[in-house]
Amino acid sequence: MNLFDFFRPKKPKSASVAKERLQIIVSHERRRSSTPDFLPQLQTDILQVVRKYIQINENQIKLSLDKRGDCEVLELNISLSESGKP
Amino acid sequence: MNLFDFFRPKKPKSASVAKERLQIIVSHERRRSSTPDFLPQLQTDILQVVRKYIQINENQIKLSLDKRGDCEVLELNISLSESGKP
Repeated sequence: MNLFDFFRPKKPKSASVAKERLQIIVSHERRRSSTPDFLPQLQTDILQVVRKYIQINENQIKLSLDKRGDCEVLELNISLSESGKP
Repeated sequence: MNLFDFFRPKKPKSASVAKERLQIIVSHERRRSSTPDFLPQLQTDILQVVRKYIQINENQIKLSLDKRGDCEVLELNISLSESGKP
């Protein structure tokens, strides 16, 4: 599992793009699969706690949930615009 | 800000080390510093929601909060042992 892949910028940064951004990556390595797969539920919970601090709309959020072997990776990318200010 | 640094393994993996692991990285890029710094509080909230799904003790958690320029990065590493099973 190469976590670097998840952090490679998708496009070049510039002063006009994504002035403020919150990125959350959750990686769950389960070699023996003894713990239930809880990342889909955790995703909802994390978004809920983030909303305590910043106002975010659904269209500001990009989500992905990926499985690679024993590793499950949840990626939350939140682009904060003017409406993201508390 | 090079996020790759946070994902480089600190030591080589082996079958006997960290069979199950949960890693959470939160990166907050605040170019204009208009949003308050909420990562220290978010850290507590995230641990609280993770505890809904798995039992974790304080000694299973490694936390770090780092600032580099406009970017603040919170890293939570949770090593799950037998006691981590629900």
